[in-house]
Amino acid sequence: MHELFTVLAPGEAFASFSRAFSPIARTEIVLLDAALGRVLDAAVVAGETLPGFARSTMDGYAVRAADTHGASEQAPAYLRVVDDVPTGVVPRRAVGAREAIRTHTGAMLPADADAVVMVEDTNLVPSGAGPGSDEIEVLAAAAAGENVLAVGEDVVRGAVAVPAGRRLRAADVGGLAALGQTRVAVRERPRIAIVSTGDEVVDAGTRPAPAHVRDVNAATVAAVVRDAGGIPVPCGIAPDEPRALESALRAALDGADALVLSAGSSVSARDLTADVVGRLGAPGVLVHGLAIKPGKPTVLAVCDATPVVGLPGNPASALVVAWRIVRPMVRLLGGEDPANVDGGGAERDAVLDVPVPSRPGREDFVPCALARDVDGVVHARPLFGASNLIFTLVRADALIAVPLDRSGLAAGERVRVVVP
Amino acid sequence: MHELFTVLAPGEAFASFSRAFSPIARTEIVLLDAALGRVLDAAVVAGETLPGFARSTMDGYAVRAADTHGASEQAPAYLRVVDDVPTGVVPRRAVGAREAIRTHTGAMLPADADAVVMVEDTNLVPSGAGPGSDEIEVLAAAAAGENVLAVGEDVVRGAVAVPAGRRLRAADVGGLAALGQTRVAVRERPRIAIVSTGDEVVDAGTRPAPAHVRDVNAATVAAVVRDAGGIPVPCGIAPDEPRALESALRAALDGADALVLSAGSSVSARDLTADVVGRLGAPGVLVHGLAIKPGKPTVLAVCDATPVVGLPGNPASALVVAWRIVRPMVRLLGGEDPANVDGGGAERDAVLDVPVPSRPGREDFVPCALARDVDGVVHARPLFGASNLIFTLVRADALIAVPLDRSGLAAGERVRVVVP
Repeated sequence: MHELFTVLAPGEAFASFSRAFSPIARTEIVLLDAALGRVLDAAVVAGETLPGFARSTMDGYAVRAADTHGASEQAPAYLRVVDDVPTGVVPRRAVGAREAIRTHTGAMLPADADAVVMVEDTNLVPSGAGPGSDEIEVLAAAAAGENVLAVGEDVVRGAVAVPAGRRLRAADVGGLAALGQTRVAVRERPRIAIVSTGDEVVDAGTRPAPAHVRDVNAATVAAVVRDAGGIPVPCGIAPDEPRALESALRAALDGADALVLSAGSSVSARDLTADVVGRLGAPGVLVHGLAIKPGKPTVLAVCDATPVVGLPGNPASALVVAWRIVRPMVRLLGGEDPANVDGGGAERDAVLDVPVPSRPGREDFVPCALARDVDGVVHARPLFGASNLIFTLVRADALIAVPLDRSGLAAGERVRVVVP
Repeated sequence: MHELFTVLAPGEAFASFSRAFSPIARTEIVLLDAALGRVLDAAVVAGETLPGFARSTMDGYAVRAADTHGASEQAPAYLRVVDDVPTGVVPRRAVGAREAIRTHTGAMLPADADAVVMVEDTNLVPSGAGPGSDEIEVLAAAAAGENVLAVGEDVVRGAVAVPAGRRLRAADVGGLAALGQTRVAVRERPRIAIVSTGDEVVDAGTRPAPAHVRDVNAATVAAVVRDAGGIPVPCGIAPDEPRALESALRAALDGADALVLSAGSSVSARDLTADVVGRLGAPGVLVHGLAIKPGKPTVLAVCDATPVVGLPGNPASALVVAWRIVRPMVRLLGGEDPANVDGGGAERDAVLDVPVPSRPGREDFVPCALARDVDGVVHARPLFGASNLIFTLVRADALIAVPLDRSGLAAGERVRVVVP
């Protein structure tokens, strides 16, 4: 009757688990406007140097810096304005000694100019004698390179512009646009088969008979998979019967990069899950039991190179473990840099308002409300009560993550909160 | 030649701006598996009570709690096991006095039972006389309600299950599934027209002629819009000429819920943008200049009820302002609860490793690298150098947000970092 499994810390369990499977290698080409959030397959090397020409970063006058040496309001330097170069136009001539060419932010710098004097640091002295005869007073000396964006200051041809395994952010998409990379090779999204089990579970679209409940886990797991960059493949509800379950799981595995099932809730249903998963392929079950609350009765397996996660049947437990284990699994499968899969995204810090008890050796996730005080500091207030219900998570703003080694968190302490 | 505008703090500027437009009212029905990240149009009221029947939360025996009163290992209570109710099955009979019915996690509680004794707190005493004649020793007293999930403990019929204006998370999708809400009324995604300007700017898919550069802002703004739940509508590159620009902007506004344009970089191009935007409709330009670095030359306008944002031409500045202003604008337009549009998502806290200078009265965003130390604390190290370049943002993990009222941040200080 007792659960015969060794309970592992989530971090340790995930490390063993992730060593036993590999990222998918399939790639596809997407247009740049569909590349946000996709994982770059190989490093993009800059095919050109940017900027490819020296540019002015200010509205003003392109000059030879040496000609402004010592200039001040009391002793201006006088330069002859010989041309005006709008943005987007190639200068017709170089800047000669004691000459200035009118320039604009973003415009190409004329040859032999090495600095731009801001228009605010000049006075125009019209000669009245027509174009090319005006002079400027330069009221401040310009150093070489001042207000100039040099060739290659942004990126240099041959350098890694965006690294492999990066999940592309807005800035990365911008960098690719700057290089003219409007088609991008990304990893395919991993396909994650999702199976629910439990004799009491019916599809969310149906009205449950007495003693039955709707399937919540298929929906929440699909959401976590999608958010992590995967494609959820819903495979329905399998019965709590060994042969039928095994055949449903084998069918679900066909063409899938991973399988996530939510086990029945009872101990016997959970043991059945572990038994059946163990038969799907080698090496089979690697972890049976996580030191996490909620979510202890979790099974992690790898069957013929395909990762399989058996989630607890309880919806809140299943969602916490989906966030803690399935999310990084999908991101690893999707080719994301392993250094990044554990952090980022929906986690932040908050100040805890009241103490939260816990037990060392276990990660706890406690539903909380968040509120920002007048100073902008975010405070977390635990929502006590039945924490293992789906609507407790609906009502919560986030979950307080109690680290493995802590026997509780103190009021006033700064804590990490996550949004699964 | 001087910029004649009043510079407003970003928060204050956004508040004035957002008071002058309204969320879109158009809705659509989506299937639950496409509802993640969409904004709920109206509150979903629970159409039923969950759980609809009392359920066991443990494997064990359903009993009348009074029958276990005073039970201990030394003095067990003896109860006759009269049935076994699997999950998903309606009990055939009630629990009588001094009776117990075998139950399983998630199973329906038999009538007249008010507690479940965990199987670990019992010993089975087989009588050998066939079904219905076994007894259990109950080794610990059960309180009424113990290990039972009562009717309505999750959600009660008629209560708000998920509030209007919520951007649906995995837990919310689960709550809707629990209620059988497989079709969800959400706001339409706002359509955001995106126009780039600048005589030096060419489409990212082309090779720039000398003195020209590729359009970066269309790509980054589209990414920010998409991430905020909007639909980017790319409208190409408009020339820096008043009549052509006005006609391009009017065409872009047609059918759009908002217009975002990135202005040319030079002062004259920026002034042109503000002039033309001012002619598009009343009330016109509300804000000309933000106290933000990078991103000062920003224009916020509302033209015939449609919000218009004129971003700076510089790609890094444009991305910062897109994150700070366009992102919450899209979320407000999309019907999201105003209390939520400013926070959440990609922001977290970090410990600053070196001081960052700033100027009070201005929000600064400083590119940084993030690293987690052995204790799991995230540290931010500013990336100095040319911070106004797109590849500086590509190389950065995040931006350190320096608050408006600070004259700089000290080493060791806890700071907020954001990922645009």
